Amino acid sequence: MLKRYLLAPGPTPVPPEVLLRMAMPIIHHRAPDFVPVFESAKNRLKWLFQTNNDVLILTSSGTGAMTASVDNFLSPGDHVLVVNGGKFGERWTKICKAYGLLAEEIMVPWGRSVKPADVAGALERDPAVKAVFMQAVETSTGVYHDVEAVGAVIKDRKDVLFAVDAISALVAHDLKSDAWGVDLMIGGSQKGLMLPPGLAFLGVSEKAWRMSEGSKAPRFYFNLKKEREALKKNQTNYTPAVSLIIGLEAALEMLEQEGLQAVFARHARLALAMREAVRAMGLETFPEESPSNSVTAIKAPEGTDGQEIYKNLRERYGVTAAGGQDKLKGKVFRIAHLGYAGTFDVITAVSAIEMTLKGLGHDVRLGSGVGAAEEILLEKRTP
Amino acid sequence: MLKRYLLAPGPTPVPPEVLLRMAMPIIHHRAPDFVPVFESAKNRLKWLFQTNNDVLILTSSGTGAMTASVDNFLSPGDHVLVVNGGKFGERWTKICKAYGLLAEEIMVPWGRSVKPADVAGALERDPAVKAVFMQAVETSTGVYHDVEAVGAVIKDRKDVLFAVDAISALVAHDLKSDAWGVDLMIGGSQKGLMLPPGLAFLGVSEKAWRMSEGSKAPRFYFNLKKEREALKKNQTNYTPAVSLIIGLEAALEMLEQEGLQAVFARHARLALAMREAVRAMGLETFPEESPSNSVTAIKAPEGTDGQEIYKNLRERYGVTAAGGQDKLKGKVFRIAHLGYAGTFDVITAVSAIEMTLKGLGHDVRLGSGVGAAEEILLEKRTP
Repeated sequence: MLKRYLLAPGPTPVPPEVLLRMAMPIIHHRAPDFVPVFESAKNRLKWLFQTNNDVLILTSSGTGAMTASVDNFLSPGDHVLVVNGGKFGERWTKICKAYGLLAEEIMVPWGRSVKPADVAGALERDPAVKAVFMQAVETSTGVYHDVEAVGAVIKDRKDVLFAVDAISALVAHDLKSDAWGVDLMIGGSQKGLMLPPGLAFLGVSEKAWRMSEGSKAPRFYFNLKKEREALKKNQTNYTPAVSLIIGLEAALEMLEQEGLQAVFARHARLALAMREAVRAMGLETFPEESPSNSVTAIKAPEGTDGQEIYKNLRERYGVTAAGGQDKLKGKVFRIAHLGYAGTFDVITAVSAIEMTLKGLGHDVRLGSGVGAAEEILLEKRTP
Repeated sequence: MLKRYLLAPGPTPVPPEVLLRMAMPIIHHRAPDFVPVFESAKNRLKWLFQTNNDVLILTSSGTGAMTASVDNFLSPGDHVLVVNGGKFGERWTKICKAYGLLAEEIMVPWGRSVKPADVAGALERDPAVKAVFMQAVETSTGVYHDVEAVGAVIKDRKDVLFAVDAISALVAHDLKSDAWGVDLMIGGSQKGLMLPPGLAFLGVSEKAWRMSEGSKAPRFYFNLKKEREALKKNQTNYTPAVSLIIGLEAALEMLEQEGLQAVFARHARLALAMREAVRAMGLETFPEESPSNSVTAIKAPEGTDGQEIYKNLRERYGVTAAGGQDKLKGKVFRIAHLGYAGTFDVITAVSAIEMTLKGLGHDVRLGSGVGAAEEILLEKRTP
């Protein structure tokens, strides 16, 4: 028996409480028993998104909500800015192009965080810009972009939307949708929310709803105006992934019980412990600044192959991490500490890395990383 | 305790075997353990769809696959035909219009089945028609449209696609994608496939792939060409609803064990028993011809309200059926016998209808419908 540990940046482990709730007999989405489940999930999502806006629930992957953020608010020919600092930044550009938008990219070197002044400068140069698309956490590099600071640059511009892909950031980072002027805040079920994949979430500001009136892009499945009308009746426009919404209620109950600030502090502590362990093992994290609380990208040490490390973690130790994407393939491997994650998930990850590197012939002192992680995980714990 | 029975045309009950399989720890969709699960589901879907074509697996409701069937194969301005004989026929028209197609509707009175000659005539009149959109089972009326006969009219036209929404028909009806020339065959998880909602399936013919090359409609989340490439590697383009795909494998295993013809025969028998019971209770089914094997729409008898019957079934007897949609609201109620359905689901439904009608003051002989259903369910059973 090789016991398995899922430590990838999505899907993340689903708590047994949630799995069992979802294994209950299915209920009908148009019948009265669905209403309290949906309403509870809907209201708790607003709490998590720190918003008074509607948070729509879509049956799709996060990319569905990204697509909907483009085709419900903009029109072919519109000027937009994309912060591109990795694989998912690139995705924004691709979506914008698919819908005929003119996307100017603010290129951010992989491993670095966007400079808010660069966004401000681009907005100054082109007053026709109607939206800025960004990630909160760029999953491919493990970098957190400063949503608050970029939001401050956009907030007072009445005709510029700020769209944030927070799919990998939600739950792990304190993201204040309303206070920071995020018009479109996107989440996914299979990350911090501790659910299987299949749901996407989309917080929509009044500014965004106003701008949607002028949008001329074609759409049907992702028709957010209709979703908003349905939401008022605690429904979705089309048949939703009912069992995932049942699980969503359970997962949000767990987060609520822990408390929002405690949830963020836990993620920050786990991420710090992971980074300290990486350093103690003589390794380097990939981000040069602003590492995320969700996922840590670690450089494969000189003479080793990141994919080989990923493979060994899985096959010898049962630990499913993630490799590098695109140009980082073979150069990094990534460990998530996201959602249903605690002290001994980090310890397990670090220990598995130590043994894997040793096994691959790399010089690492066994226990060095674990010891460093324990320093953080011990001293930060309140009694 | 009011014991509950879900007898609505989607979501349908999920077998415990499937619920438990989905409650297993989540696996990562890019890790090797996902591949055999996906491959098994993929191959069994081809068996169910009776096709050698690829059957794509999308994370969305069925309407997502309907949307994808329009925006991946056609362009604004294209001429298309829509068979509109109910609420879901209407949906095809709405999707086509959303993407700028010129849709001519073949209007079919609600409760009747399309005449293949009408499709042939419309194709003759407008040689520019590029696609015909139809339902196999129109869920709102409970009518089955003759897919084989309509397919025969289209099959030899090299530049006309035949798109069939078989969301409510699959598993309940013998649908031969390849033999009947269906180019786009659409299914959903929450119907005959006995799963929670959240997955859609789309069989795509070579003719359709050829036509997709010329399509100019914008799209991103539903990019079928990319899904096809991913499918070859037993993957999906974006993160799929992993737990539902795990359940899909389990559900398809159950269907395979029963055998395809036995599955169809079971649905035909249950549907016949339901219709005989309806007649014996002195009621009428809504369809004037070609009733489906999936769902039976029953006219609310003179002096009763269909919504009242629906409500009483739910609240007094725990039976979740469906009411009428749009112009049928209050005039019909609908009982499904679809997916994880057997003899005593029909008996339960009929018995609940008898008691409900009696309770509402309608003159019905208790046991009359059940007796008639038993005649069918008894004599057709092989020892």
